[in-house]
Amino acid sequence: MDRTLSHSPRIAVIGSGNVATHLAKAVTRAGYKLSIYNHHYESASRLASAVGATAVADLDDLDADIYIITIKDDAIASLAASVAGRKGLWLHTSGSVDMKVFDGIVDSYGVLYPMQTFSKDADVDMTEVPFFIEGCNGDVTRAIRELASSLSHKVLEVSSANRVKLHIAAVFACNFTNYMWAQSSDILESIGADFSVMHPLIKATLDKTLTMSPHDGQTGPARRGDVDIIKKHLSMLSGVKHKLYETLSTDIMNEYHHNTTDYQS
Amino acid sequence: MDRTLSHSPRIAVIGSGNVATHLAKAVTRAGYKLSIYNHHYESASRLASAVGATAVADLDDLDADIYIITIKDDAIASLAASVAGRKGLWLHTSGSVDMKVFDGIVDSYGVLYPMQTFSKDADVDMTEVPFFIEGCNGDVTRAIRELASSLSHKVLEVSSANRVKLHIAAVFACNFTNYMWAQSSDILESIGADFSVMHPLIKATLDKTLTMSPHDGQTGPARRGDVDIIKKHLSMLSGVKHKLYETLSTDIMNEYHHNTTDYQS
Repeated sequence: MDRTLSHSPRIAVIGSGNVATHLAKAVTRAGYKLSIYNHHYESASRLASAVGATAVADLDDLDADIYIITIKDDAIASLAASVAGRKGLWLHTSGSVDMKVFDGIVDSYGVLYPMQTFSKDADVDMTEVPFFIEGCNGDVTRAIRELASSLSHKVLEVSSANRVKLHIAAVFACNFTNYMWAQSSDILESIGADFSVMHPLIKATLDKTLTMSPHDGQTGPARRGDVDIIKKHLSMLSGVKHKLYETLSTDIMNEYHHNTTDYQS
Repeated sequence: MDRTLSHSPRIAVIGSGNVATHLAKAVTRAGYKLSIYNHHYESASRLASAVGATAVADLDDLDADIYIITIKDDAIASLAASVAGRKGLWLHTSGSVDMKVFDGIVDSYGVLYPMQTFSKDADVDMTEVPFFIEGCNGDVTRAIRELASSLSHKVLEVSSANRVKLHIAAVFACNFTNYMWAQSSDILESIGADFSVMHPLIKATLDKTLTMSPHDGQTGPARRGDVDIIKKHLSMLSGVKHKLYETLSTDIMNEYHHNTTDYQS
């Protein structure tokens, strides 16, 4: 849809990192008129060229109906302070920053949190990404929902407090999971095996989790309560890997066998 | 291929659990003549009917060229003792039991370890499952390789010591990963959200790990060194989830920022 001819809101994206890149692509694809600001003009300019948007060198010159702040969490408050009193709807995209960061600074504000892991190079189908939204009042929430619904099929309203919990859930499901894969990759490397030998197992584990619940899909030595194997594995590990293996096995044993075992004996 | 008319070895599977089920399917599909023994005859009989094999009620009556023991790790040694002196090639399928469990008990022995997570209901393409093999001598290793190669495209020889490391790597990549997803699922449930909202993120995380290394794909608050967010998240967690979040964030911070932070301050 060409929204430039309609009464569609003009969008501005502030930032040019991973979230900005994918959001900018989705916004222009959905037909909105987009301008991009970043304190490094070169980055804004590069992204703007890539997606068919306009780069703006000075934040004061950025003129839009909806401003989407995609910068780092700890920089949002000071960016917000620098736009105090400006018109338009101001949104940030953070999982863990409270909507109130805008309170008393601008009149219309809210949150547009796309729950996804973004890398600049990896293509993401934004229409499948869940967008969690929050607005400072009903009208604003409706405006955010309209924008989000034009980018994704999955739009859900969530409070700031629950959004933090979503973010925590994402840290477990994505960042900590990846860290487990990193440990696995190290161990394989130590015996000269490539991480690709683990790919079929990882894919099967994912398939199980997507079709049954992760609690039902739990397997392994700790799930079986196989203390001999756990001890054998611990005897071959040291450092972080030993600590993680012990901690996680104990937690799984406690959950499924209500049994605290001291492997260090 | 119909191996029943050739000089192909006759196969026996001992056990009727998840590994036995998938192995029995693969073995009959590859055209081998298969018999199945389990101390619960009913289970052996049910599996045998399902795959077109013969169930045998008494271990002494089981007659084959290659015997594949698929029972629980801690039961393998006593099963082996009960077949002392028998002819044929004896294999177990465990990731963590040493091949020497057969030493002095039978003449021909080895290991056939399919590194995969098996559930009875979920179909597995065994041709894609890596089989790690080990034989007590060169001839035996060749015989095992021939069998494994008829079941899977990926057959790798590995020592008992390295096989345990493979198993540990699999515990991290599969069991511990699943446990992270279970934590995520709990947190989502606590705010009334379904685990399915996390599926796109999980799939994207997996895609990244399959195309770049997990170390390069690490993201999240700890990877960024965002201590404020980590503290905020910890303030909303308790029990096992608090402990895991703290432990893993500290480990990731130490790895990427060489920085030990005490979040409990």
